[in-house]
Amino acid sequence: MNIAIVGIGLIGGSIGIRLKETHFCEKIIAVEKSETNQRKAIALGLADEIQSLENAIANAKVIILTIPVDAILALLPGILDQVTDQVIIDMGSTKSNILNLIKDHPKRGRYVAAHPMAGTEYSGPEAAIPNLFKDKMMVYVEAFKSDEDAFELADAITEQLEMKTSFMTAEEHDTHTAYVSHISHLTSFALALTVLEKEKSQGRIFELAGSGFQSTVRLAKSSPDMWTPIFKQNKTNVLEVLEEHIKQLQFVHDKIKGDEFDAVHKWIKKSNKIKRIIK
Amino acid sequence: MNIAIVGIGLIGGSIGIRLKETHFCEKIIAVEKSETNQRKAIALGLADEIQSLENAIANAKVIILTIPVDAILALLPGILDQVTDQVIIDMGSTKSNILNLIKDHPKRGRYVAAHPMAGTEYSGPEAAIPNLFKDKMMVYVEAFKSDEDAFELADAITEQLEMKTSFMTAEEHDTHTAYVSHISHLTSFALALTVLEKEKSQGRIFELAGSGFQSTVRLAKSSPDMWTPIFKQNKTNVLEVLEEHIKQLQFVHDKIKGDEFDAVHKWIKKSNKIKRIIK
Repeated sequence: MNIAIVGIGLIGGSIGIRLKETHFCEKIIAVEKSETNQRKAIALGLADEIQSLENAIANAKVIILTIPVDAILALLPGILDQVTDQVIIDMGSTKSNILNLIKDHPKRGRYVAAHPMAGTEYSGPEAAIPNLFKDKMMVYVEAFKSDEDAFELADAITEQLEMKTSFMTAEEHDTHTAYVSHISHLTSFALALTVLEKEKSQGRIFELAGSGFQSTVRLAKSSPDMWTPIFKQNKTNVLEVLEEHIKQLQFVHDKIKGDEFDAVHKWIKKSNKIKRIIK
Repeated sequence: MNIAIVGIGLIGGSIGIRLKETHFCEKIIAVEKSETNQRKAIALGLADEIQSLENAIANAKVIILTIPVDAILALLPGILDQVTDQVIIDMGSTKSNILNLIKDHPKRGRYVAAHPMAGTEYSGPEAAIPNLFKDKMMVYVEAFKSDEDAFELADAITEQLEMKTSFMTAEEHDTHTAYVSHISHLTSFALALTVLEKEKSQGRIFELAGSGFQSTVRLAKSSPDMWTPIFKQNKTNVLEVLEEHIKQLQFVHDKIKGDEFDAVHKWIKKSNKIKRIIK
């Protein structure tokens, strides 16, 4: 069995390394439009060969899509048109629009919607690492609409990646990721820009940046090509969480401005409840 | 020589451990009002004995203040009244108000204003660790106003902690920390609250929280007793950075809402410049 990975960057490349390491399949075929990334993928051992999308569909049993979500939307219907018994897995960060787009496709059953809750702030083939997915969560969305054999094969790959699993509706998935992933990126981008702007008048400002700053701003290194389509595809949820987040910041702003420091203390203390969630 | 540490939590306790480890002084005397923390400080080896503030001033050559900034403001003038040739070092996160308060004190020269840019999201004696300060930045504020011998002794302690050093005015310090430390805490508190609120209607929301979320929200575990006074003492700068940060978030909100995704892409790409600052 061959597995094709469409888009051989951080996610696709990390799947490639790991599946080659466990000898789960005969060949990893990469579909990749950037010639530079094609060369890197082979040189770094993320894939065995490069093929066109058409050839990869013909030669692979599983086709994994690890490209930006707008590219998934553009390609998925055409790929489904070409499949017989292959399995298509998309690993994108938004699901409602994609699932809606292909909901009546005659080959709907061959498609598994999955989202690995794993990543780093780096991108491209050189960012790929073998243990990226270990002990992280793979979310299946509307898994009950996939053919049983298609889901089983997708889940066997998830097992190779040593991931935990979770099942959700598209709506749940897109709300939850807006709150625990997409907003974190937006606050990091905004924080980076806030300080970069100030640097223009206060040259030494980064001299004092410690580990706290690093940790809240590191996601601001993330790729605009990947994240712009996510905010576009998950627009409604992203706007909702952004509005609530701005409301929280405006609240504490007004309390500080009005010298209501008991209210500020209470607000911080309430946020400390996050201790029971994160280690 | 004995060294007194007033407030034996994360910062004070970590100084205590390290100075005991390097045998820099005869005894570490802790001044600590919480009886629980007194017991922990001795049990954990952060200090050799507990004394009242008055006795500690009489028995120590150096008095280090590692208490919340409002407590430093309240105690510092009275401590300066009692010193002869001792050195007082404050390690608080805001400086303008403190320096302004004691600027005409006859013992001003015995005082060194310092701020170690180091910490974790934990607090209390049990959070103390020996290498907290290693390779981090110690900022001296208005160091030229300290007596030469007082500064030299403070700097010898900084050397024991294996820190780098930087020199600033109070205004520079308070602006810079607002931008690279205080705002990071505010965004973390706000982010934690945004998601904790949503959890009430979407129970499983934290199931998908990955390392990105953890990293942007971990500072929300920080102590309200420490942070409320910082926002109070650095009110003007904190309000300024909060306003600029909200403006950035409102900007991207409006662009997403208006389907201006080219502008969103450009905004993210601009924030990526943070790559040249943080590793």
